[in-house]
Amino acid sequence: MAHIKLPEGLPGIVGPLTFSPETAKPLTDLAEVLLRGPNTLTSAEREMIAAYVSYRNECNFCQLSHSAAAAAHLEGNYALVDCVKSDPESAQVSDKMKALLNIAGKVQKGGKQVTSEDVERARAIGATDKEIHDTVLIAAAFCMYNRYVDGLATTQPLEREAYYEMGQRMAHEGYGRHRQSKPQEVA
Amino acid sequence: MAHIKLPEGLPGIVGPLTFSPETAKPLTDLAEVLLRGPNTLTSAEREMIAAYVSYRNECNFCQLSHSAAAAAHLEGNYALVDCVKSDPESAQVSDKMKALLNIAGKVQKGGKQVTSEDVERARAIGATDKEIHDTVLIAAAFCMYNRYVDGLATTQPLEREAYYEMGQRMAHEGYGRHRQSKPQEVA
Repeated sequence: MAHIKLPEGLPGIVGPLTFSPETAKPLTDLAEVLLRGPNTLTSAEREMIAAYVSYRNECNFCQLSHSAAAAAHLEGNYALVDCVKSDPESAQVSDKMKALLNIAGKVQKGGKQVTSEDVERARAIGATDKEIHDTVLIAAAFCMYNRYVDGLATTQPLEREAYYEMGQRMAHEGYGRHRQSKPQEVA
Repeated sequence: MAHIKLPEGLPGIVGPLTFSPETAKPLTDLAEVLLRGPNTLTSAEREMIAAYVSYRNECNFCQLSHSAAAAAHLEGNYALVDCVKSDPESAQVSDKMKALLNIAGKVQKGGKQVTSEDVERARAIGATDKEIHDTVLIAAAFCMYNRYVDGLATTQPLEREAYYEMGQRMAHEGYGRHRQSKPQEVA
């Protein structure tokens, strides 16, 4: 049971977003620009950074929903997403992406964990300042979303299948949708 | 030196906010509603939660600037803010505020650290669901801002005096100002 009385039947972050529309707007605007805005990193890559950080923070709702969104961008390739989460250095992603995931993993532990060497590794393989900036901010933002979802003890399905449709919507319709939806359409 | 090339002469988060205006808007909109929006918690109380979490995350820019903002709401009472940061249970704040600071400290470590007992303690002393929600989200949000500021290795003055004017502006003018300002007016 959640720590506060949230609208019923809404999993994970959707409950608190519906409970508090005045904070939902900047929270979903941030997710939209970070994960779906114009960028030299693909949305699949950015969703995998989000899933990786959420996995390390052990936030089931965020890691499963953003894994589903990443897979939706990757024609259902959950195997790749799973490998990125559990062992990014061995995953079939670019060397640049591996270097960015390394930075994201450091941010998950704490901002000061990111070293000049971590950043140099990414830069040497072609990462731009904007890509490094966006990686740091995506990782930092999911340290917020994860704490918001778990700090209120929201309801979180544990089966991958429960997130399939949600991942499709996150990938292809975006993050503002819950505001225009009736609750029963969101759950 | 910062990990990426940021606009010069802008301390802490102001550099990355200016570097990336498309993410700056939701980030500052969120701070504005969380810390200055209509609320049964005073802005002083909310700024102290922000300063407390930032202090525990060892983010100098955020803890010093939000301490200054809290003090600006408290007629310069830095002694109270310092006590809240270092030993909240002994600080001259309400029992409700102590219970909310306890929740914020748990969120700083991780969302799952917040227990039913933590929430019951706050509720028993009069905290509403909205106050508990807002405390969790303020604490979560500063786990993001702190990582953003430190993960990019931004320039951060260490003297309290460097934040006095900034704290006055944060308290009394708010968090959207940097977008309308020339850089030299912000620093």
